[in-house]
Amino acid sequence: MCDGLNIYGSTEFLGRVVEKKSLFVCTIATTATSKIPGITGAGVSPELTEYTPAADVELIIHDKPLCLDEIPQTIVEGGAAPTPAVITKAALQIADIPFLVADAGSAIKPSVPYVKLGDSAGKDIRTGKAVKNPQKIFENGKILGKTLSKLTEHLIIGESTPAGTTTALGVLTALGYDASFKVSGSMSENPHDLKKDVVKEGMASAGIFWGESVSDPFKAVEAVGDPMIPAVAGLAMGSEVPVTLAGGTQMTAVCALIKALEPDFDFSNLCIATTVFVVEDETSNIHHIIEQIGEVSLYAADPFFHESDNEGLRRYLSGSVKEGVGAGGAIMAALLQGIDIRDIRKETEDLCQKIIN
Amino acid sequence: MCDGLNIYGSTEFLGRVVEKKSLFVCTIATTATSKIPGITGAGVSPELTEYTPAADVELIIHDKPLCLDEIPQTIVEGGAAPTPAVITKAALQIADIPFLVADAGSAIKPSVPYVKLGDSAGKDIRTGKAVKNPQKIFENGKILGKTLSKLTEHLIIGESTPAGTTTALGVLTALGYDASFKVSGSMSENPHDLKKDVVKEGMASAGIFWGESVSDPFKAVEAVGDPMIPAVAGLAMGSEVPVTLAGGTQMTAVCALIKALEPDFDFSNLCIATTVFVVEDETSNIHHIIEQIGEVSLYAADPFFHESDNEGLRRYLSGSVKEGVGAGGAIMAALLQGIDIRDIRKETEDLCQKIIN
Repeated sequence: MCDGLNIYGSTEFLGRVVEKKSLFVCTIATTATSKIPGITGAGVSPELTEYTPAADVELIIHDKPLCLDEIPQTIVEGGAAPTPAVITKAALQIADIPFLVADAGSAIKPSVPYVKLGDSAGKDIRTGKAVKNPQKIFENGKILGKTLSKLTEHLIIGESTPAGTTTALGVLTALGYDASFKVSGSMSENPHDLKKDVVKEGMASAGIFWGESVSDPFKAVEAVGDPMIPAVAGLAMGSEVPVTLAGGTQMTAVCALIKALEPDFDFSNLCIATTVFVVEDETSNIHHIIEQIGEVSLYAADPFFHESDNEGLRRYLSGSVKEGVGAGGAIMAALLQGIDIRDIRKETEDLCQKIIN
Repeated sequence: MCDGLNIYGSTEFLGRVVEKKSLFVCTIATTATSKIPGITGAGVSPELTEYTPAADVELIIHDKPLCLDEIPQTIVEGGAAPTPAVITKAALQIADIPFLVADAGSAIKPSVPYVKLGDSAGKDIRTGKAVKNPQKIFENGKILGKTLSKLTEHLIIGESTPAGTTTALGVLTALGYDASFKVSGSMSENPHDLKKDVVKEGMASAGIFWGESVSDPFKAVEAVGDPMIPAVAGLAMGSEVPVTLAGGTQMTAVCALIKALEPDFDFSNLCIATTVFVVEDETSNIHHIIEQIGEVSLYAADPFFHESDNEGLRRYLSGSVKEGVGAGGAIMAALLQGIDIRDIRKETEDLCQKIIN
């Protein structure tokens, strides 16, 4: 189609949204699961991971985080890679796409206007009681999705949820999917054994047998999910316009929940848009998960960081961060407005320069 | 122009918004001032007034209040008049205008998705410390107004704030306006002396002399205002499309704050839309307040309740309720979409039938 976008599945969805008015909603959530040492790279220390979603959306709206002194970074050997929020911000501002924040349940609240969808942050999934009242979060998401779809022609839903691939693994597993060793992660070494152990412990605490799929879909979220998953499922199901789920393997858990709630859901009006760093990741397999769900189109944006001199952004090329804050979907949306991928990359570099230094 | 709308000032604004896509934002807030006995009719008892805003927006979204057993009503001799939320709901649904809720600071939170703009409910203005950090509420409103104006062609901003005419009197007075005995009220007998005494006490507590205008506009809100006023001022000033302030004399306090913050603000892209019950009210004088502000166009919707058999709605004709939840602006917006006022009246009656009985 154009430089910067790889297509897996049908191009039909792209035809529906090309040059259409888009609205980007970033759904934030936290789960105490992110404080398990070694499970996520989304934050400089386990304790600070809960600040990442708030800092991400503050960065996009105020040009800098307010709840933290520095922008969220993933620490890797030899340095740090900046939060994907800088990519999202660059793509949305160059394409003039409006940005809204929805809070599904976060421990740290951002200093920005946000739509409240849930009451409380997610708990450590090892308790087997991860999310309080996921159905209410879902219903709120559905109301908001319906309203927002009257205001735009294309709803893009991103997320910022540290340790969200672990909770995605939880929901996928509890819904009967084979996802072990398939979910992505923010570090170049993907701690699959740790993720699986954490999910196993949570399922055991909730009394769900490994290999068994729960009959009530919300039970899967309640036991071993995070607040973002029902919020985004609600937003997507409430929408009357095409929906892009902007994220990696976490969005497959959203699709799995949607399918469990409505087996005949029309997935032709929805896609997952992520980055090439997720689809080409050898430590995970998003395709294998999507195949189990059915006909969900997948698009992967390539920010052309191989042409960049920025050291932080180049760390994405060796497997750091990969995706988050809907970066892949934001790039796709900008490309669909006719913007050149090199201009998005340049804008991202300029932002890094301005924000980090 | 058409049956159901009286025009005070220029028709230019109407030309800009006729048949345009509209979005209605209802800004809710509470102030402990509403618990002063006799100050407001917005609730069956002083203690329950704090539930009114939440119940109003729940009624619009869920077809019934969730935080109360019954819909909010104003008790008058011989019966009760239903909340103007039924009028707003009828007008918006017949015109298919999307509805969003913003919380500027409410004691009781509604069970609906809402945009959080403020942290806390307003205090009794007699303390002289009515609103915490009004500038932050304003800044959040401004960010939201800017974002929403990218999604619509006409932003309509309503409010639900019990005792809001008293806090409006407070802000107007502290900003140097002559508004005593001029603000409206939800009861047929307007307790002007009580309102003035309450404002006087608040100004004294805050160290503001009567007749003196404060130099920092936010100080007026902080001392004797409510959280709705800075939120709506921010929404209006952030908007890049025409704005209808849907409300009565409370919205003149919003205009006064806008003018104090930006003396050269272009009021030609903004109007106040209320009901005939406010403009024809002999116990108040919205025109006198507007004249002191400057060129603000005022429109007054007439719901044609004189043609209605519904007893509750007919109580509006004898001075109960008058306005609220942006009822006048919602009617105007429906009229601007070419809908007949009698169809709006009929829809309101049907809703009352369905909701109250």
